[in-house]
Amino acid sequence: MNILVTNDDGIAAPGLLALAQAMRPLGNVSILAPYHNWSGSGHVKTLDRPLRVKETHLEDGTLAFASDGAPSDCVALALLGFFDEKFDLVVSGINPMPNLGHDVTYSGTVTAAMEAVIWGVPGIAISLGSVDNSLVVEDYQPAARVAATVVSKAWHQKLTPDILLNVNIPLLPVEQIKGFRTTRQGLRVYRDRLDRRIDPRGKPYYWIGGDAPTGISEDDTDIGALADGFVSINPIQLDLTAYAIFKVLNSWKLVL
Amino acid sequence: MNILVTNDDGIAAPGLLALAQAMRPLGNVSILAPYHNWSGSGHVKTLDRPLRVKETHLEDGTLAFASDGAPSDCVALALLGFFDEKFDLVVSGINPMPNLGHDVTYSGTVTAAMEAVIWGVPGIAISLGSVDNSLVVEDYQPAARVAATVVSKAWHQKLTPDILLNVNIPLLPVEQIKGFRTTRQGLRVYRDRLDRRIDPRGKPYYWIGGDAPTGISEDDTDIGALADGFVSINPIQLDLTAYAIFKVLNSWKLVL
Repeated sequence: MNILVTNDDGIAAPGLLALAQAMRPLGNVSILAPYHNWSGSGHVKTLDRPLRVKETHLEDGTLAFASDGAPSDCVALALLGFFDEKFDLVVSGINPMPNLGHDVTYSGTVTAAMEAVIWGVPGIAISLGSVDNSLVVEDYQPAARVAATVVSKAWHQKLTPDILLNVNIPLLPVEQIKGFRTTRQGLRVYRDRLDRRIDPRGKPYYWIGGDAPTGISEDDTDIGALADGFVSINPIQLDLTAYAIFKVLNSWKLVL
Repeated sequence: MNILVTNDDGIAAPGLLALAQAMRPLGNVSILAPYHNWSGSGHVKTLDRPLRVKETHLEDGTLAFASDGAPSDCVALALLGFFDEKFDLVVSGINPMPNLGHDVTYSGTVTAAMEAVIWGVPGIAISLGSVDNSLVVEDYQPAARVAATVVSKAWHQKLTPDILLNVNIPLLPVEQIKGFRTTRQGLRVYRDRLDRRIDPRGKPYYWIGGDAPTGISEDDTDIGALADGFVSINPIQLDLTAYAIFKVLNSWKLVL
């Protein structure tokens, strides 16, 4: 199995190192990740400038490549031929903080896996349920083991390439993780505020920010599973059509 | 009705002017759009830097505001209190080129409408079926009239705030547009290639690009409707869960 490993926190992130190490026993691992952090950057296709790729090494000496593109650009580079390998699976992470509910369209970790699906390769996004991103590589070990379990199963069970798995793992020792739940996407509650400030030259500027998001913790959702100590596996498709509203829209009888 | 108008092509784009003018008879219109083009930029939440907002005017003298944030940032700024108004509807566009199939998670036009839904306001993304973006404001007039028809109907029919409408309009005179179709998201076929070049200093760089995307043109899809000369109205939800695969995933019997 040829596995591409990427992330949205950048090539130097400890979560990437932990993930790459956990993937190595499963197949041939190639690493292409952004130079810097792209959290909240969304699903990017960089069209207006060319991308650079630098050869580098992870902390443990593993050969890796870093790009000035977004996480989804890294996946496009890899799947369109930067490497000689044809990839069987793209794994993105490990993000220190969870990607739950409406986070998925913002998340660089998840949109990297979306980009894999766009090019016909199954994608798996791995995030940890930490409340901050001050973790060290050891903190990622339980999640790395979960990632290996999920990736190995996805490979042997031939996960369909039109699906990505958004995996969120509680920040707990392995023996305290209660198991796995297949989940639906829950309802995230963002608590951002607009913070207007004045710069030293008297001009206003605006921060979007506030308290960390919460969510509605129903049992069958990603949010509920994580809160209950389970690994959440939320399968995601790229057809966003709201079929349930067709009847309503058709009753509008639009005419020009 | 208080309407926020934004786009992803930037404050000076003729499609924004056409849209703002078409919205004016329907309610109070506020305009907040990016300084520059953000095509393909995805669903962005800018957290690592503050945003600036400048007062400006559209070509017809209308008061407008421009920000150095992404389209989705502009919507967050507006809905979190940059304006005194509480908005009833967010309308994004008019994008010269269509946003079809898998384009929706990349598209600044569509992700601006997603951001509206995140904050509980219905969003409507308006795109035109041009093959290039060299249009002038007159070229947008039929689409602007379609936009006014859809927005007015969405308001009177009380479009639910958990849905956005991704509207694509053929580049045709109004009398040649065949009508409206409620559509599902079709399958986009991207034809990007990786183009490796060498810079004047002997170093490689990489363009992601190639032929324009095509798509599988089934009648009931956005791609098919546009190809057949109909306005496509594809309702989009932010729950991306692939419910159809739950049974398969549950049969995996994952254990740590």
